[in-house]
Amino acid sequence: MAYADFRHRLPLRVRWAEVDKQGVVFNAHYLLYCDVCVTEYWRAVGMLYPEGFAALGSDLYVRKATVDYRSAAYYDDELEVCGRIARIGSSSLQFSVEIYRRRQYESVLATGELVYVHVDLALRTPTRVDDPLRGRIRAFETVAPDESESGAR
Amino acid sequence: MAYADFRHRLPLRVRWAEVDKQGVVFNAHYLLYCDVCVTEYWRAVGMLYPEGFAALGSDLYVRKATVDYRSAAYYDDELEVCGRIARIGSSSLQFSVEIYRRRQYESVLATGELVYVHVDLALRTPTRVDDPLRGRIRAFETVAPDESESGAR
Amino acid sequence: MAYADFRHRLPLRVRWAEVDKQGVVFNAHYLLYCDVCVTEYWRAVGMLYPEGFAALGSDLYVRKATVDYRSAAYYDDELEVCGRIARIGSSSLQFSVEIYRRRQYESVLATGELVYVHVDLALRTPTRVDDPLRGRIRAFETVAPDESESGAR
Amino acid sequence: MAYADFRHRLPLRVRWAEVDKQGVVFNAHYLLYCDVCVTEYWRAVGMLYPEGFAALGSDLYVRKATVDYRSAAYYDDELEVCGRIARIGSSSLQFSVEIYRRRQYESVLATGELVYVHVDLALRTPTRVDDPLRGRIRAFETVAPDESESGAR
Repeated sequence: MAYADFRHRLPLRVRWAEVDKQGVVFNAHYLLYCDVCVTEYWRAVGMLYPEGFAALGSDLYVRKATVDYRSAAYYDDELEVCGRIARIGSSSLQFSVEIYRRRQYESVLATGELVYVHVDLALRTPTRVDDPLRGRIRAFETVAPDESESGAR
Repeated sequence: MAYADFRHRLPLRVRWAEVDKQGVVFNAHYLLYCDVCVTEYWRAVGMLYPEGFAALGSDLYVRKATVDYRSAAYYDDELEVCGRIARIGSSSLQFSVEIYRRRQYESVLATGELVYVHVDLALRTPTRVDDPLRGRIRAFETVAPDESESGAR
Repeated sequence: MAYADFRHRLPLRVRWAEVDKQGVVFNAHYLLYCDVCVTEYWRAVGMLYPEGFAALGSDLYVRKATVDYRSAAYYDDELEVCGRIARIGSSSLQFSVEIYRRRQYESVLATGELVYVHVDLALRTPTRVDDPLRGRIRAFETVAPDESESGAR
Repeated sequence: MAYADFRHRLPLRVRWAEVDKQGVVFNAHYLLYCDVCVTEYWRAVGMLYPEGFAALGSDLYVRKATVDYRSAAYYDDELEVCGRIARIGSSSLQFSVEIYRRRQYESVLATGELVYVHVDLALRTPTRVDDPLRGRIRAFETVAPDESESGAR
């Protein structure tokens, strides 16, 4: 994947409190950045989290998160946290996140992958990602999400 | 006040994620330490926060917080976060916190003062700190809290 | 003071990770917001922190922080964190911060006051806030900072 | 793997500031817990991070982190964060972390996997995990780390 494949790009400046003794962003904070990116993704798609989901009786739980650290982000860096839904499973959504330093889009600083389970708000059990939501996501994305049912959960 | 005046002393080791580029604890995190100290204070007093308060129909809101930074705490420092209720107002509680480096009790690293309002859980308006709670606090503390009604809220 | 007195106003949206079980911003995070506000203040004034200060052989240490919590900020709130230097002492700077919910400028959510000591970078002892820096601050501010030497440190 | 396979078990109580609106630990904070676990691991092994490594001219960089979220941890939960080095590559170390609720060791709340690159402190390039360090780790662990050179980096 590459910078151009992301329609959703969140500008974000590294805060003083987010860097450690080595002057680099502390590893856990990349997941914080991913989280902010995902929140803004839903706003961009027109489906506020969590209200929009709650209104339809569902919620999203993080099931798995992976971060690949390629190159450090430093204090005061202007980042762009790019996120897209790369896969829509039966009852899951997979976000792919790539973090770039602004204006340096040829090399990614870190990539993240977050798998969310779409759950029934009352039962707290997985429930199908319904067609209207799939439609919204498809309509928003530049690169079509993988919706093959093969490895679906 | 001094180390000896505190019955409640919480040992706490500074985490890597809590220090900044200068290797010192980021200023906001001292309030986090105070918060953990207050949580453990209530446990020590036998009144879990928030369940114990909720059971009596009340809650605590922070109204004001002050931190005096005297000397820096560093990564991996073993601290003792000492807290006591220094004043019980009509519907407020004032915590005094002193943070020491373990075994160096002659000089305080930072002091905190947190004023909590005791509110009615349903109405969210200030409500009197009742006598049983005052009794518990008095019974726990070594130095008696100021309970004069003069400047009370 | 009031919203109109602040030339520096930082828009900031409350992150999911910054609110607690009660859905309100955790008390320590207001100091984080103040810190981001101060960082951006220095950028606005044309004096990057910490590089600008380091180039002149100085640094800033927080000496005291106070937060007054008036009304809660909630998840996803769009805030404006307004900061100004209210006082320039001999070797100290006092920031006044007021936090508003966007478009609701008649009532402040919280106010903060941060006292910084201007220290010699090598000696780590207080050193006078020099005239060029005073000039920059004066030139930037709408309301002139108090520079009386009376209670100065 | 199972609870019994971990010699290193860090007790840790969930802080108020670490849970979100849903009352569960925010997803990024599991990496914070892993980090604290790793810090204490090195202390237990007799090799303080970062001093012990710096003394030998090396450092550790996180290269990849993965968290599997099985079941939520709640406010005030007493956790045990268990960590072991599961694999020693040519110039990398792989930590496996399992997080349990105290006294409930039959079901894991979350698992983490952190891959660290062992770098030369000056050159910042990967450098071999030397034999004395391998020896210390082997001597500490109950379950022998995988040291096969096959997929080694």
